[in-house]
Amino acid sequence: MEKYVYFFGNGKAEGNAKMKDILGGKGAGLAEMTNLGVPVPPGFTISAEVCKYYYDHGRTYPEGLKEQVKEALHRLEEVSEKKFGSVENPLLVSVRSGAAISMPGMMDTVLNLGLNDETVRGLAKLTNNERFAYDAYRRFLQMFGDIVMGIDRLKFEKELEKMKEEKGVKLDTELDAEDLKKLVEKFKKIYKEEGKEFPQDPWEQLWKAIDAVFGSWMNERAITYRKINGIKEDELLGTAVNVVMMVFGNMGEGSGTGVAFTRNPNTGEKKPYGEFLPNAQGEDVVAGIRTPLKLDELKSRLPEVYEQLMEVMQRLEKHFRDMQDVEFTVEKGKLYILQTRSGKRTATAAIKIAVDMVKEELITKEEAILRVEPRHVETVLHPMFDPEEKAKAKVIAKGLPASPGAASGKAVFDAKTAEEWKKNGEKVILVRPETSPEDVGGMAAAEGILTSRGGMTSHAAVVARGMGKPAVVGAEEIVVDDVEEFLKVGDVVVKKGEWISIDGATGEVLLGKVKAMEQQGLSGELAELLNWADEIRRLGIRANADIPRDAKVAREFGAEGIGLCRTEHMFFEKDRIPKMRKMIVARTKEEREKALEELLPLQKEDFKGLFKEMEGYPVTIRLLDPPLHEFLPKEQEQLEQVAKDLGISVEELEEIVEALHEFNPMLGHRGCRLAITYPEIAIMQTKAIIGAAIELKKEGMEIEPEIMIPLVGHVNEIKYLKEIIEEVADKMIEEAGVELKYRVGTMIEVPRAAVTADQIAQEAEFFSFGTNDLTQMTFAFSRDDIGKFLPEYLEKKVLDIDPFKTIDRDGVGSLVRIAAEKGKATRSDLKVGVCGEHGGDPASIEFFNSIPQLDYVSCSPYRVPVARLAAAQAEAKQKKQ
Amino acid sequence: MEKYVYFFGNGKAEGNAKMKDILGGKGAGLAEMTNLGVPVPPGFTISAEVCKYYYDHGRTYPEGLKEQVKEALHRLEEVSEKKFGSVENPLLVSVRSGAAISMPGMMDTVLNLGLNDETVRGLAKLTNNERFAYDAYRRFLQMFGDIVMGIDRLKFEKELEKMKEEKGVKLDTELDAEDLKKLVEKFKKIYKEEGKEFPQDPWEQLWKAIDAVFGSWMNERAITYRKINGIKEDELLGTAVNVVMMVFGNMGEGSGTGVAFTRNPNTGEKKPYGEFLPNAQGEDVVAGIRTPLKLDELKSRLPEVYEQLMEVMQRLEKHFRDMQDVEFTVEKGKLYILQTRSGKRTATAAIKIAVDMVKEELITKEEAILRVEPRHVETVLHPMFDPEEKAKAKVIAKGLPASPGAASGKAVFDAKTAEEWKKNGEKVILVRPETSPEDVGGMAAAEGILTSRGGMTSHAAVVARGMGKPAVVGAEEIVVDDVEEFLKVGDVVVKKGEWISIDGATGEVLLGKVKAMEQQGLSGELAELLNWADEIRRLGIRANADIPRDAKVAREFGAEGIGLCRTEHMFFEKDRIPKMRKMIVARTKEEREKALEELLPLQKEDFKGLFKEMEGYPVTIRLLDPPLHEFLPKEQEQLEQVAKDLGISVEELEEIVEALHEFNPMLGHRGCRLAITYPEIAIMQTKAIIGAAIELKKEGMEIEPEIMIPLVGHVNEIKYLKEIIEEVADKMIEEAGVELKYRVGTMIEVPRAAVTADQIAQEAEFFSFGTNDLTQMTFAFSRDDIGKFLPEYLEKKVLDIDPFKTIDRDGVGSLVRIAAEKGKATRSDLKVGVCGEHGGDPASIEFFNSIPQLDYVSCSPYRVPVARLAAAQAEAKQKKQ
Repeated sequence: MEKYVYFFGNGKAEGNAKMKDILGGKGAGLAEMTNLGVPVPPGFTISAEVCKYYYDHGRTYPEGLKEQVKEALHRLEEVSEKKFGSVENPLLVSVRSGAAISMPGMMDTVLNLGLNDETVRGLAKLTNNERFAYDAYRRFLQMFGDIVMGIDRLKFEKELEKMKEEKGVKLDTELDAEDLKKLVEKFKKIYKEEGKEFPQDPWEQLWKAIDAVFGSWMNERAITYRKINGIKEDELLGTAVNVVMMVFGNMGEGSGTGVAFTRNPNTGEKKPYGEFLPNAQGEDVVAGIRTPLKLDELKSRLPEVYEQLMEVMQRLEKHFRDMQDVEFTVEKGKLYILQTRSGKRTATAAIKIAVDMVKEELITKEEAILRVEPRHVETVLHPMFDPEEKAKAKVIAKGLPASPGAASGKAVFDAKTAEEWKKNGEKVILVRPETSPEDVGGMAAAEGILTSRGGMTSHAAVVARGMGKPAVVGAEEIVVDDVEEFLKVGDVVVKKGEWISIDGATGEVLLGKVKAMEQQGLSGELAELLNWADEIRRLGIRANADIPRDAKVAREFGAEGIGLCRTEHMFFEKDRIPKMRKMIVARTKEEREKALEELLPLQKEDFKGLFKEMEGYPVTIRLLDPPLHEFLPKEQEQLEQVAKDLGISVEELEEIVEALHEFNPMLGHRGCRLAITYPEIAIMQTKAIIGAAIELKKEGMEIEPEIMIPLVGHVNEIKYLKEIIEEVADKMIEEAGVELKYRVGTMIEVPRAAVTADQIAQEAEFFSFGTNDLTQMTFAFSRDDIGKFLPEYLEKKVLDIDPFKTIDRDGVGSLVRIAAEKGKATRSDLKVGVCGEHGGDPASIEFFNSIPQLDYVSCSPYRVPVARLAAAQAEAKQKKQ
Repeated sequence: MEKYVYFFGNGKAEGNAKMKDILGGKGAGLAEMTNLGVPVPPGFTISAEVCKYYYDHGRTYPEGLKEQVKEALHRLEEVSEKKFGSVENPLLVSVRSGAAISMPGMMDTVLNLGLNDETVRGLAKLTNNERFAYDAYRRFLQMFGDIVMGIDRLKFEKELEKMKEEKGVKLDTELDAEDLKKLVEKFKKIYKEEGKEFPQDPWEQLWKAIDAVFGSWMNERAITYRKINGIKEDELLGTAVNVVMMVFGNMGEGSGTGVAFTRNPNTGEKKPYGEFLPNAQGEDVVAGIRTPLKLDELKSRLPEVYEQLMEVMQRLEKHFRDMQDVEFTVEKGKLYILQTRSGKRTATAAIKIAVDMVKEELITKEEAILRVEPRHVETVLHPMFDPEEKAKAKVIAKGLPASPGAASGKAVFDAKTAEEWKKNGEKVILVRPETSPEDVGGMAAAEGILTSRGGMTSHAAVVARGMGKPAVVGAEEIVVDDVEEFLKVGDVVVKKGEWISIDGATGEVLLGKVKAMEQQGLSGELAELLNWADEIRRLGIRANADIPRDAKVAREFGAEGIGLCRTEHMFFEKDRIPKMRKMIVARTKEEREKALEELLPLQKEDFKGLFKEMEGYPVTIRLLDPPLHEFLPKEQEQLEQVAKDLGISVEELEEIVEALHEFNPMLGHRGCRLAITYPEIAIMQTKAIIGAAIELKKEGMEIEPEIMIPLVGHVNEIKYLKEIIEEVADKMIEEAGVELKYRVGTMIEVPRAAVTADQIAQEAEFFSFGTNDLTQMTFAFSRDDIGKFLPEYLEKKVLDIDPFKTIDRDGVGSLVRIAAEKGKATRSDLKVGVCGEHGGDPASIEFFNSIPQLDYVSCSPYRVPVARLAAAQAEAKQKKQ
């Protein structure tokens, strides 16, 4: 006969941790602990194979199961020295479901099974606590009625409420034994009214509960849960059933219940941490009426139990090789461990524990890397509000958590004011309906940015992340009036100069000033952990940085070069934009070249700054990318000023703006198309890049410039421009008489480029995947417009993830893979990287790591530490497979 | 010793037509004709292998070449009974280059070689025509100087002009023998001044000419020509050199020259057609001073020559199996054929000749199919201006030839007027700056459409092609004032009501009314030819049609179903658009459903009309595709009216317009995204489609509806909508109790759909490639905006073709291939077609035919005959390979 029932108790179990498939997670854990000699309440597990049999055979059980359960229960009686159904010394059990994967929606727990009109009296006598016994009984009646018999739990709740009303009390605990006895009768009446009979026979109770557990495997909620979470029916046998002896912490002063962590879950300190509530059950802790004691007090009250707990906890941590969160109950001086699991911890603790455990030789460096979540790194690097202070503040709205970090400042409603106030030493939060390139100066001056419109990839979000500045965007409840200079949410109005706070990690907007905690920075354990990550990871990590300040941050955070410098950002600066506009309104090539001539020295200085910060590392500079109309003003008022500055009529300027207008600017006259129609722009930029490199080279620095041509879709585009660039660059290098190596390559961001990457690699010396735009083109999703349908797509599960946040593996990712393969097949020394925002997203990095042709990812400077960790995790996981 | 020189003459040649590689096209042709017994002037060809040797060995000749040339020339003297360099009976020759591929830019022809100060006198005596002899000599001096000696030809021209001035004459022919003698002396002086000597020795002349031919193979123009045309150096040996005896048609009345076609090149009639000029040389025909005689007159003048010519022409046509264009010269009663080639012909002739030749069993049906160019079919199907009448009319501007056909009408400047005037029996041309969906009624009413803006894929162009209506778009010289109602080009003004004409095949805009020729239509030989095409082609041909009228045309032209019905076009009609707008401004689902309810019966009638016309054939109906803002008015004036009609305030309407605004509508809230956010629209359309089908089914008709979901990029999109559609449709079919099969499929127009086609085919029952949008997304080219850079791309050869006209094989085409393969691999009975405009482009059809998984192409009704032919050609060509 097959074995269906696995006993555990008295230090020995028939199962173990590896038998998750048939014992479920819970059953395997209980068996494992038992084998470890941990004092677990004894019990047995009915295998998940029974569940499979149950459904394969029209909801019947295999032969011999009844006998095996009976035998196991007898063993339980022996071990517990109690008797199932006995009035004198009743054995009570809990019945729980437990599949290999934890699955909400299935029947969870029935406690106190075994109680009936007789045994309840035995329990009362045994515990010398009638109230406890009847409370246990009425709870059992309720749970059993609800979960096993299918009686609406509200019916029981109503009776309970009525009783409390009659007695004029508020809490369940204020009911006395007599009240509870009456309640028991009323509960039994509910059964009757429902046409059901509460089974007095404990055996009948047990089998009904077992039936209910197996039955719940196929209930609607469980099926839906599996469907939503992509768990396939045939990957699981079903659920197991755990039958475990009840223990009680409320049997006097020698009893109690508690929770303990093997290390401090807040700080990570290697010292047990927890709480203990004497003479109480778990529920009492939850009810929160009595204040639990610190774990230390257990030591003085029950020193032997404490010693045993310490010893067990150490053993568990060593065995499971992770910080454990242990639930325990002491019944009359006897310690029972009810559950152990890896403990939840703060970011700081996660990092410290992982590093400490490597030093203690408990885990390997790879394991340490995998223990820390990328978001943990982000959290410790960005300022956070003091949790207590934050709890007191009023949250007035919630937007998208666009750029992590906490910030408080006086609300200002335009970029100019932000810059002015900042100069006067004020802290400000820049509040805008949405931001545009003209706001960049104000954004840099502000402590944080708040917008009422835009998504995670809006201008505000992208720029803020690039600056490492906290930002909340798309807080749509907020009405921002940037003319009258106030914001409004419901009745709350915040005027210019009033304090406001934002939490860029959660998207919360808070009224007033909230105190922030000190920032940890990239030092201590985190630095150590990331150094290990660097040893493990295969992918290089670069940063997207446009200015020396960002490049400096990137280097400090461990970036190994710049993967994307967007040169257009340089042209938005106050001293540049008039010159840029002069270039745009030029009527002849000569006029245009003259305007460019004025930009050249400025741009050269920009590059010198970047190169200096990145000495010895490659710097990828993208030629001008956005359509020219982005540099022209949009509003009438500004138009007049700009026309005046440029010395042309408003009509002329309007004509130019009109001529530059595009129906779909994303697919319009931009990227390399600009450089092909106006090669003089590319020439000026080449001169600035190579000129800067030559000057530093002469000073003895190692400079590695990479000139990147954007939006290439056809090999002829890069071919045409590469010829022009090389002609200019080679002549300059020859004239300067220096040795300077530079590369010319391209963004891969147009689907056609990915499909024809073999051809493009004949010209390109490197590829950098612009996965933002590649996602836009591949999906035909304008990221400025997806707000109209993406939320609904996510809600209706048409899409599982926002493809601008995490790379779409099947579509966009597949193009990345094809292009990387084709590119390297054509040119074996092709450098291949990713510079889209996905380069800083851990889930995307895991995918990129799986493409052997990819050499590096590049992300905003503040995400570099996250990317270092994520890249190491990806590699460690891949090696494991 | 290797053979380098191939002789031909006296009815026998050493080469033949198959030896093109070494003899070049010209040499092989002369050899072939000689072998056929055609009286060709004798001569010899120096093999192209010599050219290769020449360049491989530092511009020297292989051993033995000199001897072989000498020997060939001796044979030529024997056959011609003349002597090279003889004063009494001089042999003159022409020297011509000739590679396997005809190649402009290489040295072409030196005539009369062999003349010198002595032989010219012999020629004068022999011809008894001193003027002729010196004219030949001065021409030779000029050609030889220019082509062989590298003397600027303008120097000779100047002397000629001076001479004419001195003599006070205008034409060369007015110079007499004495003048020409003087000119000869002056020309020789030019040689001297250039430091060069004119070689009197004919052998030296000959070798210098041969050197020049081989030297010209590597001159700059020839190299550039090969580069531009993608001819690789190593695919060709080089050029051959042809040395041929000169014959003269100007040796009296028994001499002459002419051109003859074996059939009438204008009508295709099987009757020789040509001209003959007695006592003249080819140049005299070109000079156009004397009017040539009809070929018939040769019969009366030189009956034997005529008979011989007829016999030779018949032989040539039979041999080359095509209508021949024959150049001939009669020298003193002796007929010489100088050249034969396939004759150029009109569209009408091309079709008639091809069909006749099949009936004459001269060619196969496949060959007939390949002989007719797709544009021929288009030409005979569309009205054309009478060429003589057109020649008299004034062309005032040239735009893009957006939709073929000729049309005259009174100029009107708005759609409403067009409709009204049409009702009153007037013919009108609708002239607009550009058109929008609101102009569609006026476009239908007009004879033709003229716009000053927009490209080949602008609204005006696309709609006009769909209607088969002549259109010229983007005629940018024209200023259209639609307020004052006139157009202006330079000084020319055309006011409302004045006649104007357009030629949609050439893009010309003509002043006044121009008489058109009668339209041939799809009958007679064309119908026969297309029936053969149907037998041969593999691809099915469907039409893109939105209304019953178009469907009718499509069926008449042989369409085998509708590949794309754009339902949105139905909503732009006058009685629909107010209801559509009501739907758009609806605030609740209920309001929206109410508005849709009103549209349902109208839409159902639309579909009934289409289904009836297409009985027995599949009809693919695309669900609503464009973004909703396209249905709302753009101008302030209209906004007010529409707000009034809808019973809402202008402010409310403005807010809705603002909310619907998109930055990149091409990538925005449209296609299936609309249906997912507003499933009620898809439900209404499903009800209309299935309802219409059920009603006709009950009448006993065979109906095959295919419901097409646009813009799908992810399998979940079609999955989500297919469930909704099937629920509605299946319920209706069940309730109606009819047997109705329908399919649900998708457009493949988003790159992601192509890449994940295997997944999408799990849901889709058919694919239809929307190659217009697929090209936009794959290239990241907005076709509304490419005017800003595409012209420059084509000019700079960054792109060879406009990818919206002919499919880009490497990029977009590669996605089509991948998707078709993946789709059919998942679902073997998947129907796969193309419904983008490329479906009507012959070059694109050739590519589509090469994808075995593609089942059909669909194009505008008027292009169906073109597509039928092109598909047959593609298949015939593919089979040949």
